[in-house]
Amino acid sequence: MGSENTVALGRNIAVLIGGVGGAKLALGLMAAAQPRQLSFIVNTGDDFRHLGLKICPDLDTLMYTLAGIVEPSQGWGIADDTRTVLQSLSQHYGIEAWFGLGDRDIATHLLRTQLLREGQSLSQVTACLTRRLGIEARLLPMTDGDMPTLVDSLEYGQLGFQEYFVKHRWQPTVKSIDYRASRDARLTAAVTEALYTADLVLIAPSNPWLSIAPILAVPGMRAALSRVDAPVIAVTPIIAGDAVKGPTAKIMRELGIEVSARAVAEYYGDTLAGFVDDTRNPAFELGELRLTRLDTLMTDLRKKTELARRILEWSEGWAR
Amino acid sequence: MGSENTVALGRNIAVLIGGVGGAKLALGLMAAAQPRQLSFIVNTGDDFRHLGLKICPDLDTLMYTLAGIVEPSQGWGIADDTRTVLQSLSQHYGIEAWFGLGDRDIATHLLRTQLLREGQSLSQVTACLTRRLGIEARLLPMTDGDMPTLVDSLEYGQLGFQEYFVKHRWQPTVKSIDYRASRDARLTAAVTEALYTADLVLIAPSNPWLSIAPILAVPGMRAALSRVDAPVIAVTPIIAGDAVKGPTAKIMRELGIEVSARAVAEYYGDTLAGFVDDTRNPAFELGELRLTRLDTLMTDLRKKTELARRILEWSEGWAR
Repeated sequence: MGSENTVALGRNIAVLIGGVGGAKLALGLMAAAQPRQLSFIVNTGDDFRHLGLKICPDLDTLMYTLAGIVEPSQGWGIADDTRTVLQSLSQHYGIEAWFGLGDRDIATHLLRTQLLREGQSLSQVTACLTRRLGIEARLLPMTDGDMPTLVDSLEYGQLGFQEYFVKHRWQPTVKSIDYRASRDARLTAAVTEALYTADLVLIAPSNPWLSIAPILAVPGMRAALSRVDAPVIAVTPIIAGDAVKGPTAKIMRELGIEVSARAVAEYYGDTLAGFVDDTRNPAFELGELRLTRLDTLMTDLRKKTELARRILEWSEGWAR
Repeated sequence: MGSENTVALGRNIAVLIGGVGGAKLALGLMAAAQPRQLSFIVNTGDDFRHLGLKICPDLDTLMYTLAGIVEPSQGWGIADDTRTVLQSLSQHYGIEAWFGLGDRDIATHLLRTQLLREGQSLSQVTACLTRRLGIEARLLPMTDGDMPTLVDSLEYGQLGFQEYFVKHRWQPTVKSIDYRASRDARLTAAVTEALYTADLVLIAPSNPWLSIAPILAVPGMRAALSRVDAPVIAVTPIIAGDAVKGPTAKIMRELGIEVSARAVAEYYGDTLAGFVDDTRNPAFELGELRLTRLDTLMTDLRKKTELARRILEWSEGWAR
């Protein structure tokens, strides 16, 4: 038991992460490691403006989860939220919002939008929000620039991410995905520092194509990951031939990729030093890649914490 | 009774108007005249930004009143509104908003702010909002430019209007008031048209210094009022030596002006052809000014309508 308490002492951990799926491992890491030594590098490819508000779905999900105020029934939004603002827009102005926004959630977006308009960067704004929410870990937007994920679909042509994901409930057939880096999209100082001072870089079991790929597409990110001292370890988002939730498997099929943990490991490629597979998946080997097989299905906090602890134990003391 | 139904037929009426006080006469006019022939020229000197939202208190009050959704207990805001967004800003982020905003009210501000950011003028945005709210009368911002009313106070120096009015609950002593026209503050086409096609121009019993003076200060407004064919008639905001509500009398004392209907009529000056005084006030004469004395205390819809009808009857057929 002693090793369980000390396993993460002194280790800085950077985690590439998306929304609801990744947030489960994030919660486990908060319990298994030192929150102050955790840096979450969060996908912002889903970010968009709606009703004039800047909305960052993955940052919000992670913030609310780590602050303990997330709505447990859905894994996003704030618990026990109401929808009075949206109802009023519909009732009085005939505006039907296709993106669900609770009133408490709107408070976050109002504050973020205002701080951004005052000239703060998204990184600064996120630091302000997380500090006020009492979160000790660092939440770092993958970039402060615009980098929208665009989905080219068979049925509708090119869709903005939230149009694809929320408006059309990820039902359109994906032909390709474009991670479009605008000129101001680059690694932030905070992300660079988190990567270069990390003892371990984790890739959360988030959707590789919709959540992790946008992060890897930030100009400079793949180069940084190949240079950092820390080993990079990914956790499989595929369990027993399917995703726990969301369109990961569907997208893999549509892109002509075998729906398997191995295909995910291949997609991440040389970046990886290790891969955490699930015990339910068929075993595989891939070059020099270090592999372990764990129960990665995080159905409650105990299992989230247990998975995080086992990953930290497994990877302790690795040289790259 | 026949004359009551026809008295306003064919008459275009333009009304210079502020918030809660003026809205009472506005409701009366909606019943006594043809809504489609009413143009309300609304003070925007109180407008400000709060939490990144563009808020137009007088336009909002008039919109909500004429749409029948105003909170009757206070005369502003939307009926039965909740405060979840503000509560969440306080609870989660420690932000204490000094300006009360209900959730339904925020829906209005979100929509307005978004439409403005998309490049629409405040006049266009207001036309859109009022159309969707089913209001047949025209609500016209006094200008599309910035024209903030600034209050120079004994205690705090210069205050923005909402700081003076809401944050400090109009308790500071007023030394002077500045109606600051920015370069883009001018009469809009819609206001100009409303004035030049009017058969009657009314000045509502709103606060002369805080609600009407900003409208009169719009560059070109006083000149337009002196040129239009229609007679200009003001309704006293002073009844029995005091304002019905708000700081009118307090401000008059602080500015060294006698608290009387006569002083208000003198303040409006040559602009006026007629003045509706209250039966409770001491009678006065002022040059060529036509005067009538009516019960101007509008405690219910019947009295609002009755006052509007009597003003229309009194002013029918006037040449300027």
